[in-house]
Amino acid sequence: MRARDLTVPYPTVRLGDSVLSAARLLAGRHLPGLIVVDENDRPCTVLPGSQVLRMAVPRYCLDDPALARVIDEDAADVFLRELGERTVAESLPTERRELPVVAPEDTALEIAALMARTRTPLVAVVENGTLLGAVTLADLLDRILGDTR
Amino acid sequence: MRARDLTVPYPTVRLGDSVLSAARLLAGRHLPGLIVVDENDRPCTVLPGSQVLRMAVPRYCLDDPALARVIDEDAADVFLRELGERTVAESLPTERRELPVVAPEDTALEIAALMARTRTPLVAVVENGTLLGAVTLADLLDRILGDTR
Repeated sequence: MRARDLTVPYPTVRLGDSVLSAARLLAGRHLPGLIVVDENDRPCTVLPGSQVLRMAVPRYCLDDPALARVIDEDAADVFLRELGERTVAESLPTERRELPVVAPEDTALEIAALMARTRTPLVAVVENGTLLGAVTLADLLDRILGDTR
Repeated sequence: MRARDLTVPYPTVRLGDSVLSAARLLAGRHLPGLIVVDENDRPCTVLPGSQVLRMAVPRYCLDDPALARVIDEDAADVFLRELGERTVAESLPTERRELPVVAPEDTALEIAALMARTRTPLVAVVENGTLLGAVTLADLLDRILGDTR
């Protein structure tokens, strides 16, 4: 089993898309995360759902949990409204992490090790710079668990 | 909206359960992660799906991607078989991280900030040491996005 056998079509978001539309895509399609592509449709990052949410959380709440605690319930319910048209590019984390990207010939074990290291439940599958789709943790587990029964 | 309004019953795994049974629970119920409880049913850790998978990946593949690459396809398909009866307790990461646990009165913003910081798409909801259930990223997003339409 190779990445190509597990690859499924996967929606992408662009750097210029709003964070709000990215969050809606994640929620509306029940995705485990999102692939962000540049103007040439090449993946520039792959975000687990928690890091899509992170783009929508005010910075001061990330840095200091005590500050999130003093926001009252009504304001805390609608923090997404503060986002306005803020884009994915403006909200991505600046730290560089290992990119969860595999080649079509990578094995189940290489995909699993990459998901584990990058803490990301999906990997983008790229061949010669072209995005072919993604392998999700759910699909990978289904296949490798099938061999243990 | 408080954590108690978003809490749903959530399955748990015990420290003595096998990693294989934990992976099967994750895959079989399409869960975003797992809550690991101790002998008193108190959460000792909450793992995103990628870190449940991490427990099943041979250590040498996590440390060095080049080693995963030299395992041939047939062997890579069945790496879960090497797990045998290895338990969750034997496989948990040793580093201590912030625990994704909230109180029933915590707000949507506090939950979102905690998921973002801990890179975990679920939080355990605990009151007086008792596990009430979990809030998932999917449920949280559904509710807070509803207010932006």
